[in-house]
Amino acid sequence: MTKIEYFTEEQSAETVNARMGEDINPRLREVMASLIKHLHGFVKEVELTQEEWEIAIEFLTRTGKMCDDKRQEFILLSDTLGISMLVDAIQHRRPHGATENTVFGPFHVDGAPVLEMGANISLDGKGESCLYEGRVLDLDGNPIEGARIDVWSDNGEGFYDVQQPGGQPEWNNRGVFTTGPDGRYWFIGIKPVSYSIPDDGPVGEMLNSLDRHSWRPAHMHFMLNHPKYERIVTHTFVSGDSYLVSDAVFGVKESLILDYFPCTDGNVKWKAYFDFCMVGACQHK
Amino acid sequence: MTKIEYFTEEQSAETVNARMGEDINPRLREVMASLIKHLHGFVKEVELTQEEWEIAIEFLTRTGKMCDDKRQEFILLSDTLGISMLVDAIQHRRPHGATENTVFGPFHVDGAPVLEMGANISLDGKGESCLYEGRVLDLDGNPIEGARIDVWSDNGEGFYDVQQPGGQPEWNNRGVFTTGPDGRYWFIGIKPVSYSIPDDGPVGEMLNSLDRHSWRPAHMHFMLNHPKYERIVTHTFVSGDSYLVSDAVFGVKESLILDYFPCTDGNVKWKAYFDFCMVGACQHK
Repeated sequence: MTKIEYFTEEQSAETVNARMGEDINPRLREVMASLIKHLHGFVKEVELTQEEWEIAIEFLTRTGKMCDDKRQEFILLSDTLGISMLVDAIQHRRPHGATENTVFGPFHVDGAPVLEMGANISLDGKGESCLYEGRVLDLDGNPIEGARIDVWSDNGEGFYDVQQPGGQPEWNNRGVFTTGPDGRYWFIGIKPVSYSIPDDGPVGEMLNSLDRHSWRPAHMHFMLNHPKYERIVTHTFVSGDSYLVSDAVFGVKESLILDYFPCTDGNVKWKAYFDFCMVGACQHK
Repeated sequence: MTKIEYFTEEQSAETVNARMGEDINPRLREVMASLIKHLHGFVKEVELTQEEWEIAIEFLTRTGKMCDDKRQEFILLSDTLGISMLVDAIQHRRPHGATENTVFGPFHVDGAPVLEMGANISLDGKGESCLYEGRVLDLDGNPIEGARIDVWSDNGEGFYDVQQPGGQPEWNNRGVFTTGPDGRYWFIGIKPVSYSIPDDGPVGEMLNSLDRHSWRPAHMHFMLNHPKYERIVTHTFVSGDSYLVSDAVFGVKESLILDYFPCTDGNVKWKAYFDFCMVGACQHK
């Protein structure tokens, strides 16, 4: 450039982006240029005022201050603004028929007990017992052997074990199962209950200001791993839950809602059937 | 809406925005809807990966953690991304000939000494002395009486007094002057020196990754207040400074660069002349 470009309102994003040097990762350059363009586009579109800018600075600062090793308020912010789901959706576009992903959530714990099919993962006796069963299939409907299924849910009172350290049995409502040649899985858990995401911080204030609630519909978490197939991270949702249409983190997809049927054989109160369909690791790229 | 809209990649922003309730401040609705649209637009345009999202969460968290009562890393972030200057530009569009604004910066302190014209604000004897003079005028070129001029700069070593508590005389390089009927001002300070914004935090790392530096060109801060005129918050810059074209916070405007002339009358080393032009408080709305 021969002409010196000082900052102007009109060319603001271009001026900031032109400042990036030569010694920069090309992907970082692409991401930052787009971020600057869209952030400046936002500020211009709404003609953000100084007072609003100050509120934003203060909000972001408090959000950072709220974070510690147990609480990640920026992830909550990303979740409640639909950013987490959007990133997940972009990274996991799958062919029709394959099981859809949804948000991972903050409550997964590595190292849950490896159990035999049929085991009961609800260790505190709270909640309504439910038999989960189904198959793990490929896109052609063939059973997948050796799929590792990691499951976790809240307890009957709406809390994950890690939210109540000492207050629930260790590994309550968690387990890992591996499919045999028929691809089938079955285990006993509870019919999960809806719960509120943490709403005592800046994100809770934001939801309140937006006249939104902080509740998630009841769901069971599943993570499926197999060396030859793409990992699935998803939930199944309980049909009829009143928060399905207004999940605070936008995690619900229609294909993941399933009916829980009352069970009359005496052993459990409910039955929930769901087949997972995995995509070959490189099949859809 | 009769049709239930679950989250999809295509309609992500619309779904998030449709979630806002009825009981919401209309301006907040407008600002959030635009923010969501542009943030989702950014994520889609670059197809942000999970790993990149994690880097962003971690960066924002560390930026929040860096903030305390002496350090505001989110303001530094806003400054270095050109957001602060853009907000200022949008809020202070002025007619041709009026003095342009620039960033306020973090180093102003209320309550600086009210001084007589001609006073010397440099109390530590560091730096090269400079006579600042000029007039405060209206758009028609008439002098403005009673304009309160608040000035502040770094010392000869590139630090503001508040950055070296105990290490500089109190109110070093700060003062408040009020114009008489002729609109003239004059005082003695130093020819300011360029300095680096704090670069030992996440923003410094970002600048480094973007192959950008953290330096600001030398400048003298001015804030002009008068009951009948719009406040001016600006700097004057030293012509020839090598950072003029690459100010880390994009504060430079061509109209604010001025020549410092060597002074031969023995009292000071330099002279810097600048006329300010204030706009009537409601004149340009």
